[in-house]
Amino acid sequence: MARLLLGKPVADHLTEATRAAADELASAGAPPCLAIVRVGERPDDLSYERGALKRAEKAGVAVRSFVLDADAATDDVLAVISQVNADPTIHGCLMFRPLPRAIDEAAVLAALDASKDVDGSTNGALGSLFTGEKRGFAPCTAAACIELLDYYDVPLDGANVVVVGRSMVIGKPVALLALGRNATVTICHSHTVDLASVMRGADIVICATGRAKAYGAECFAPGQTVLDVGINVDDEGALCGDVDADAVEPIVDALTPVPRGIGSVTTAVLMAHVVEAARRAR
Amino acid sequence: MARLLLGKPVADHLTEATRAAADELASAGAPPCLAIVRVGERPDDLSYERGALKRAEKAGVAVRSFVLDADAATDDVLAVISQVNADPTIHGCLMFRPLPRAIDEAAVLAALDASKDVDGSTNGALGSLFTGEKRGFAPCTAAACIELLDYYDVPLDGANVVVVGRSMVIGKPVALLALGRNATVTICHSHTVDLASVMRGADIVICATGRAKAYGAECFAPGQTVLDVGINVDDEGALCGDVDADAVEPIVDALTPVPRGIGSVTTAVLMAHVVEAARRAR
Repeated sequence: MARLLLGKPVADHLTEATRAAADELASAGAPPCLAIVRVGERPDDLSYERGALKRAEKAGVAVRSFVLDADAATDDVLAVISQVNADPTIHGCLMFRPLPRAIDEAAVLAALDASKDVDGSTNGALGSLFTGEKRGFAPCTAAACIELLDYYDVPLDGANVVVVGRSMVIGKPVALLALGRNATVTICHSHTVDLASVMRGADIVICATGRAKAYGAECFAPGQTVLDVGINVDDEGALCGDVDADAVEPIVDALTPVPRGIGSVTTAVLMAHVVEAARRAR
Repeated sequence: MARLLLGKPVADHLTEATRAAADELASAGAPPCLAIVRVGERPDDLSYERGALKRAEKAGVAVRSFVLDADAATDDVLAVISQVNADPTIHGCLMFRPLPRAIDEAAVLAALDASKDVDGSTNGALGSLFTGEKRGFAPCTAAACIELLDYYDVPLDGANVVVVGRSMVIGKPVALLALGRNATVTICHSHTVDLASVMRGADIVICATGRAKAYGAECFAPGQTVLDVGINVDDEGALCGDVDADAVEPIVDALTPVPRGIGSVTTAVLMAHVVEAARRAR
């Protein structure tokens, strides 16, 4: 059976380092601070926010919440963003998306200072991932994949990494991050011919398409490390990943479970980004 | 023997379409105009400039040259860039690089309006390639690869494209362009393990490492289309590509020669970008 690559030890390990750096900044009079911007009360947002608040406490990161009514206007959100941008004691901003449909999300994102974009949402932060400038950060889930591989000593340099999915939230940024770590990277998607065969040729497979249990035994080979980034709900209403874990576990070398895998690492990465943003701001 | 994919017919075909669009803009009172910024008299720059001027004439694009002495200061170049940015009758800017060492090239690039960056040099233009905004353009050589494949009816959708090289000038941008056309894209580089085997698995191979005749028979397989983007000088002082053409021609289906291949298409792409920038500016 595959080794299960749990997220919790990765998150704890990362948080320890983040805490040390945060305490140092606090001692120097610049305590790292995250702004959370939420519009409305969507259960998903509230649940993630609770996790983020707990993680922030452990990591020594202060949080300031900006909560707007679900019927807020674009200008209301822009006013909050403007306040976040202008406040030098706020180093990072997490804004829950999608915003309600009445709000011009593109305009709001364009307004956010890329250097405070700790979740890689703005074009400025994402573009800088590509060009290698250090403005903003990668989306936390993409960065969490790299953190997890590092923690479990899965080498990226020279590895054949196959990324399934090409979204701006995970597929494309994680491909760039892996490339930056000297992996040979193949990006697959719905037009890929004989996807299973391409996946079988990889050392590391990163599945990020959001299709419940879409990748079964035929897609994997012995020796592989598999990161399952999808968080889906199966026919019985249970959480599941993009990988058919029951079928794949007997084949591969290592696999991240869903839940308790990559998803458990993202808030720890978020806090690491806030502390790094605070460090850069000095 | 492989079909030789010459650049000239691609450039001529593209220029015809560019000319029609340029004439239309001119009739509407907005003739497309390219600024060429050159510092010093490097032979390579002068040679490319001559080609660009000829191509501009064919394409119906006006050119305004800004030439500075080789000992110009950063401020002198910034003053030119500022003039280019401010002038609404200039739609695109080609600046020869590398600039002389005394000049802060990063500062100069940062100053150039990304929407006038018709050769994908600025972080703004390159970042927008990644995010999919339409600011600026891809580097002309990367775009020329796609133009050439289109002209010769080599399908990208679903094709396995292997890009060898990951520079910001060609490898990374051409990978993104191919991905945007629904190819399955693998990016290889100096850390890739068993590069020859990865290359042999491709439908289309794009070589862009600048290593003279580095890729021989062992890297290729029947049926492949090979784009050779390198322009190097061999031991006898002759121009050659990254591909060992004599060894590879008998194997593959189609190959771009060096010279007379991809390099012949770049100025035509540059003019197409200027006209598109002029169109967007309206």
